Amino acid sequence: MTTVVTHPTVLTEIDVEERVATVTLNRPEKRNALSLALMTEVVEVLREIGARKDVSVVILAGAGPAFSAGHDLGEMTGRSMEEYREIFDRCCELMETVQSIPQPVIARVQGIATAAGCQLAATCDLVVAEEAARFGTPGVKIGLFCSTPMVAVSRVVGQKRAMQLLLTGVPIDAATAADWGLVNEVVPADRLEGRTRELALQIAAASSVVTGIGKEAFYAQISRDQRSAYEYTKTVMTMNALAPDAQEGMCAFLEKRQPTWSDRT
Amino acid sequence: MTTVVTHPTVLTEIDVEERVATVTLNRPEKRNALSLALMTEVVEVLREIGARKDVSVVILAGAGPAFSAGHDLGEMTGRSMEEYREIFDRCCELMETVQSIPQPVIARVQGIATAAGCQLAATCDLVVAEEAARFGTPGVKIGLFCSTPMVAVSRVVGQKRAMQLLLTGVPIDAATAADWGLVNEVVPADRLEGRTRELALQIAAASSVVTGIGKEAFYAQISRDQRSAYEYTKTVMTMNALAPDAQEGMCAFLEKRQPTWSDRT
Amino acid sequence: MTTVVTHPTVLTEIDVEERVATVTLNRPEKRNALSLALMTEVVEVLREIGARKDVSVVILAGAGPAFSAGHDLGEMTGRSMEEYREIFDRCCELMETVQSIPQPVIARVQGIATAAGCQLAATCDLVVAEEAARFGTPGVKIGLFCSTPMVAVSRVVGQKRAMQLLLTGVPIDAATAADWGLVNEVVPADRLEGRTRELALQIAAASSVVTGIGKEAFYAQISRDQRSAYEYTKTVMTMNALAPDAQEGMCAFLEKRQPTWSDRT
Repeated sequence: MTTVVTHPTVLTEIDVEERVATVTLNRPEKRNALSLALMTEVVEVLREIGARKDVSVVILAGAGPAFSAGHDLGEMTGRSMEEYREIFDRCCELMETVQSIPQPVIARVQGIATAAGCQLAATCDLVVAEEAARFGTPGVKIGLFCSTPMVAVSRVVGQKRAMQLLLTGVPIDAATAADWGLVNEVVPADRLEGRTRELALQIAAASSVVTGIGKEAFYAQISRDQRSAYEYTKTVMTMNALAPDAQEGMCAFLEKRQPTWSDRT
Repeated sequence: MTTVVTHPTVLTEIDVEERVATVTLNRPEKRNALSLALMTEVVEVLREIGARKDVSVVILAGAGPAFSAGHDLGEMTGRSMEEYREIFDRCCELMETVQSIPQPVIARVQGIATAAGCQLAATCDLVVAEEAARFGTPGVKIGLFCSTPMVAVSRVVGQKRAMQLLLTGVPIDAATAADWGLVNEVVPADRLEGRTRELALQIAAASSVVTGIGKEAFYAQISRDQRSAYEYTKTVMTMNALAPDAQEGMCAFLEKRQPTWSDRT
Repeated sequence: MTTVVTHPTVLTEIDVEERVATVTLNRPEKRNALSLALMTEVVEVLREIGARKDVSVVILAGAGPAFSAGHDLGEMTGRSMEEYREIFDRCCELMETVQSIPQPVIARVQGIATAAGCQLAATCDLVVAEEAARFGTPGVKIGLFCSTPMVAVSRVVGQKRAMQLLLTGVPIDAATAADWGLVNEVVPADRLEGRTRELALQIAAASSVVTGIGKEAFYAQISRDQRSAYEYTKTVMTMNALAPDAQEGMCAFLEKRQPTWSDRT
């Protein structure tokens, strides 16, 4: 049932029956450090998935003991301005791709998610973490302040807590991350895969046309002032209401039956 | 003491001695679904109250077992683009009216507040809920993503939690809503009316001129960047300080006596 | 080791070995009310510290039983528009100075932090509070709505909680302030000075060049939409990576040794 595609640093599994793709950062020996090659491959994989109509949800995972330790320091010293710019351009492209593909992306976090790895988790639409997971932005300790991670992290945990993470470099545990709104669910390690899959299937039960409309609208409205956000979303709602899946969904609800979505036919 | 005005779908009670108006969505058999008629009437009622100098606080309540189940699906199927647009225009007008009238509006929530009903609660200045209340944005389940509700909800509970509500459609209980900052106070069902009234009276003890200045300033500044927000609020503070109620309030404080507000004379 | 400079209303202690400056509001008999003179002196002191290369962190404290009770009502009654404008201009200048100097500023809060005093705590990068500390915006009770404090407070605690503080005027305790993200750490009274100093030293262990880059980037990106924030921070990261302290820090990490920062030589 599951198609597996292997890139050098990324493993992609697509289950078209469940409509769930699992994208696994696959440099476990480097704690899934975000090398230029890995970031390029993940962007490519996500874009391919984004164009598919038979995938409803993406799980973003990391192989081995860690989710991701952030940028690969091995390729971060002694570079030119152009090389650094390329790395940070690619990193931001990765973050924007996670949010711009139509499918919801769930981060499945074990071990550490630090620096750009914490940013990546914070950028996913939802985050499930094992109890032992830790989240941090320790760049300050190596002289490279986590200025791009702060964009994602400060928008999720708020100003004071973001500043604490950024200025001290001390990570927080999964329970604190959940309390701060960075993590949606914390589960025991042996439940991490199972619970993330359950959540993915729960979301995949909806029409992917509709979750795609909603995800795009979410990120388009979140940066706007409220009035402009309403102007925009009013049009989204109107067009959504006219779509076949909304007509089917509302009728099914009124008729007390299960809806049949257009993407399942 | 209390004037009662009955519209087909809204009940308005105004107690001018207590300076509190209670506006009750009154379609209990439809779980106070926000039909076009109901939204139009609530907007009208709120505007009339907004123009009154003898009302300091509004309580927005729902008759029967629910606060509001959101849009009325009975009038949501098989409509034209113009008709959908009218519904969502009116819905946004309702939300903006709640925030644009000078009186603080307290949502008093029992049972469910879902979809546009959750948006309505999230839009009120303060929310008091009974322990059994639930809040959710389940539109995804009927093919109509809660894109306008997300504007209010995402600005109150943050990105990850808003996404969880929107993508899963699973409601949260009152305690979780309080933990997430969507609800100010959770009380037992038999304390809901009493506690909401206490809170209203506590706010009504202030000068309504001053709470009106403050409420207008709050929503004007919240969408601005910080510098622009300070530029604006500095002027608000200056004009407020010159107002008779500020001079009276500061003098009363320094003289250790109770102030006498201009709206009580 | 410690240089002490005394202004009429502010006490400044600079320990250049620890690289920590402590700026103490010094009107204990007035609960450190923010008179025009005090605000002017604090701005001046912070700017002088901001220009120093031998200070890494600032602790902002209050002498006596309170952190700060806000504006000095004794100079707030019967003034002209120009005088009020001067007070609020100076107050906003104080808040902007706290965030614009390169050194992180930690508020050390005992007793009350109310109105502009609460705003001042909310404006600091980090806040440590004793268990008995209380935070509130009670202006509504004296007819002067806390419209400038709301700018800082609503950006930290969220809309509903800010509205609750603003409309009721009832303060919250330190534990609630921590739960709401206004306070980073709550400690027993006898640990307040010690724990704040520990936190300052922890931050001072980093390169002050790097924390300065990060703090400036934080406030520059927080008001922008996400795309614009990434455009800006990508450049910050690139320039930071090229800086000697980043090269030293990354190499030290890879070589498993302690880094030597440029500001310590």
